[in-house]
Amino acid sequence: MRLGALEAGGTKMVCAVGNESGEIFERESFPTRDPEATIADILAFFDGKDIEALGVSCFGPLDLNEASPSFGSITTTPKLAWQYVPLRARLQQALRVPVGIDTDVNGAALGEVLLGAGKGLQSLVYFTVGTGIGGGYYYQGKLLHGLVHPEMGHILLRPHPDDPAPRGFCPFHDGCLEGLACGLSMERRWGVPGRELPPEHIAWAIEAEYLAQMCVAAAVMLSPEKIVLGGGVMQQERLLPMVRARTHEMLNGYVAHPALVEDIEHYIVAPALGANSGAVGALLLAERSLR
Amino acid sequence: MRLGALEAGGTKMVCAVGNESGEIFERESFPTRDPEATIADILAFFDGKDIEALGVSCFGPLDLNEASPSFGSITTTPKLAWQYVPLRARLQQALRVPVGIDTDVNGAALGEVLLGAGKGLQSLVYFTVGTGIGGGYYYQGKLLHGLVHPEMGHILLRPHPDDPAPRGFCPFHDGCLEGLACGLSMERRWGVPGRELPPEHIAWAIEAEYLAQMCVAAAVMLSPEKIVLGGGVMQQERLLPMVRARTHEMLNGYVAHPALVEDIEHYIVAPALGANSGAVGALLLAERSLR
Repeated sequence: MRLGALEAGGTKMVCAVGNESGEIFERESFPTRDPEATIADILAFFDGKDIEALGVSCFGPLDLNEASPSFGSITTTPKLAWQYVPLRARLQQALRVPVGIDTDVNGAALGEVLLGAGKGLQSLVYFTVGTGIGGGYYYQGKLLHGLVHPEMGHILLRPHPDDPAPRGFCPFHDGCLEGLACGLSMERRWGVPGRELPPEHIAWAIEAEYLAQMCVAAAVMLSPEKIVLGGGVMQQERLLPMVRARTHEMLNGYVAHPALVEDIEHYIVAPALGANSGAVGALLLAERSLR
Repeated sequence: MRLGALEAGGTKMVCAVGNESGEIFERESFPTRDPEATIADILAFFDGKDIEALGVSCFGPLDLNEASPSFGSITTTPKLAWQYVPLRARLQQALRVPVGIDTDVNGAALGEVLLGAGKGLQSLVYFTVGTGIGGGYYYQGKLLHGLVHPEMGHILLRPHPDDPAPRGFCPFHDGCLEGLACGLSMERRWGVPGRELPPEHIAWAIEAEYLAQMCVAAAVMLSPEKIVLGGGVMQQERLLPMVRARTHEMLNGYVAHPALVEDIEHYIVAPALGANSGAVGALLLAERSLR
């Protein structure tokens, strides 16, 4: 199959052509501008590429209710120009192929569970810890929606006692995960981007505490077989072992499964697809749209 | 159809005969004793009742992996006599009918979504707030398992500033939901059972805060179309409106869906099946075991 993938982010768009095995034949990325200009860029990329279907893993919030007249539209995003843009409908009308769409994190979860760190599993949570924080969940063949779709970045956390900004920086919530632990929050709290903080800085223990609370919440609310942590903040390689250790400590053996008690190194992992989880996931969304 | 239901709790067993519409023809309950005596009681109830299948909604933790040799066994419960009792296998061998099994809260979620407060919905979370706290999730025809099954009572909460026991009473976790907010924790904190505390006591504001944090976590992690709050503590009718109000306040319009912003009275609700959610759910588990 020859499939198209679009990873639609708030700052850049990644377009790719590949197949249902996750092979990427070509890709291109460009900055996200206003909707008309950006959609024109996307259509120019796919022009003449002869794709059978397109998959879109997209920043949100999205309307993912297939019965809704605005299915596949971006909804109440703070990026005002993009509010209520019917992205899926626009692309489908222009490209005349089936278009599958889901959140960026659900797309990445799909990529990782079928072709990455979770091959053969029936359940997997993917978190991105970057500019913002979000989570997606794959369970027995389905990506979790529901009333809308999860907004896992907005669970409320317990502040670390040494956090100089224990209420975080979310404009909506006092002390939510994203407001406390996303890359932008780290930068606002410490005055420099996370990558400029030295390894021994307390920022890392604080960050690990928050991401461990996130992993505990995922483990007990969703009980996935694996948790994958992606996104720019996780590029700081010291963080992953700290998150595992603190999660293990906080769960304290309560969920008495070997994966959590003896083998947490293989339970909380980096994306096996590296930076391609989203693009590969979008290829798989394209394939699913053909069913 | 003529179906059997068993609601297996840590303190009592409820046995019933009914049908797939949730009608209950007869029921009986007796105290939970040691496994041999209790299983004998259960078998005595169903003897000659001519049921086509049995559904069991059971206290946990349980092995719900259908591929496991111990599928349907109780696992690491603190009730030591019940550890590793193969409840489903024992009942199936003796009754010679298909036996479906799930957690008590997944059973109640199934009852409420198909025949109670969530009729027609594709997703519903059911919490029991009683001696302990647990949650079950129904999503598009499936009850959520995964690595094991959710243990929603053990998310970590942010202590209320006026809580005299902000670490809670869970032997495993410092400040988890169950340790802070279950009926037993209320009693240990205040020295009397919740039902003896006057309506103006601060205990209720503290309890509502914790249950609202629980509802926020469910809304953003699972995005269900409805949250049902059952269990003994919720019998205090003042609590439900307080939980709704505080959940609404904490979500602060972020998830911009009318159900959460304008109509939370119909989003967080009492069980429509009253005390029968679990028994009706068990009848539906019995029906599913025949498929």
